[in-house]
Amino acid sequence: MTMNTFQNRKTIRRYARKEVSEQLLNRLLETAERTPTMGNLQLYSVVVTRSKERKEQLSPAHFNQPMVVEAPVVLTICADFRRTTAWAEQRKATPGYDNFLSFMNASTDALLYTQTFCNLAEAEGLGTCFLGTTLYMPQMIIDILKLPRLVFPVATITLGWPDENPALTDRLPLRAIMHQETFNDYTSNCINDIYHEKETLPENKHFVEINHKETLAQVFTDLRYTKKDNEEMSKGFLEALKKQGFL
Amino acid sequence: MTMNTFQNRKTIRRYARKEVSEQLLNRLLETAERTPTMGNLQLYSVVVTRSKERKEQLSPAHFNQPMVVEAPVVLTICADFRRTTAWAEQRKATPGYDNFLSFMNASTDALLYTQTFCNLAEAEGLGTCFLGTTLYMPQMIIDILKLPRLVFPVATITLGWPDENPALTDRLPLRAIMHQETFNDYTSNCINDIYHEKETLPENKHFVEINHKETLAQVFTDLRYTKKDNEEMSKGFLEALKKQGFL
Repeated sequence: MTMNTFQNRKTIRRYARKEVSEQLLNRLLETAERTPTMGNLQLYSVVVTRSKERKEQLSPAHFNQPMVVEAPVVLTICADFRRTTAWAEQRKATPGYDNFLSFMNASTDALLYTQTFCNLAEAEGLGTCFLGTTLYMPQMIIDILKLPRLVFPVATITLGWPDENPALTDRLPLRAIMHQETFNDYTSNCINDIYHEKETLPENKHFVEINHKETLAQVFTDLRYTKKDNEEMSKGFLEALKKQGFL
Repeated sequence: MTMNTFQNRKTIRRYARKEVSEQLLNRLLETAERTPTMGNLQLYSVVVTRSKERKEQLSPAHFNQPMVVEAPVVLTICADFRRTTAWAEQRKATPGYDNFLSFMNASTDALLYTQTFCNLAEAEGLGTCFLGTTLYMPQMIIDILKLPRLVFPVATITLGWPDENPALTDRLPLRAIMHQETFNDYTSNCINDIYHEKETLPENKHFVEINHKETLAQVFTDLRYTKKDNEEMSKGFLEALKKQGFL
């Protein structure tokens, strides 16, 4: 992966009917372990799903997006303080990782690991799709994958050989995300400037039209990520965090 | 970045007295924007610190680790739902992102972005160090960088040209982190197996000795990441989350 190749990376949701060999998958998972990790504790674990039955069980937790069942491999990456805790308990040490900071530490480890894995997999020609849905109904995933206390799912990746070549999606200009020395709060002019290109793209205008909305932002606030859904799912998330021992 | 090059990556904490040009930094930050992001909303922002004065202010938040002041560039990557919220408000849309799920969504975006940035930077020969300390005293960083509501620091990277070539650190064997189909809980034998190599490395034995501990695990639980510190910092973290509007 270099800047030149990464500039054209795309999320892949359709996969060829071709397996990802265990050997290749294992090599990728092992190499990604070089990702930085807190105190070199590696506060993550990966559940590999290849069985059709298990993928069908996982599918509703991801709003039945078809790639969960269609991809040859589904990876659920978890924040995992259980391994370190079990190790400490077995070595006359008193672990103190059943708290929120430890959840954030382990989530960080897990997400950095996930992104390196994806970057390495794409460099090998594989296609990946990152499923943000993992955070929506974590308890369902916890039950299906039998995740014990101090283990929490934070990311799901579908993986396979690409069977599509989608168009490159838009991104905000660099000035939208970069701040020099301190945070420069977004003024009204700044918002107009940084969203201009996104709002005038034909595909985004079409998106607003077919959803019968007035603005592109309304598609997000009224349909895709609503206040009501976010608040309900926040509750479910915090309950799951408690059940897994992190709160 | 390929599997072969990534296998030998190392965290770099000492940097040559040589600038990272603005052009190179901007190209890296911009290219990393191709990282997957929720609904293509790019829920992150990056504060670039080059001024010595600002680095000195940030240093205590990172336990005065010398690379914060010594690195030519310090990046603080933030979960940012403020930009999307400001956009929505300006486009007749009602945002609903002042909740915990939205914090997790934005943190996820920010951490995936961070790791791609690091992978790209290292592929260009730069050295990086990921500072997990960002999560320890977030309020201090919020104040120094003037982060407004719905912006929260989740990662810090020090960046520069390497001036050291440290030894490769150990990692757990793949079987320690990989689970097939469902989670296989860690048995006592399994813990002995997966930690054996780590515990018998001369540098880790030395680490136990100089800290006057009986086991390596005790170094972590009693000195590096204690229950007391974790619980106190969890409180501070949750308070900062509330103040920034995410809880």
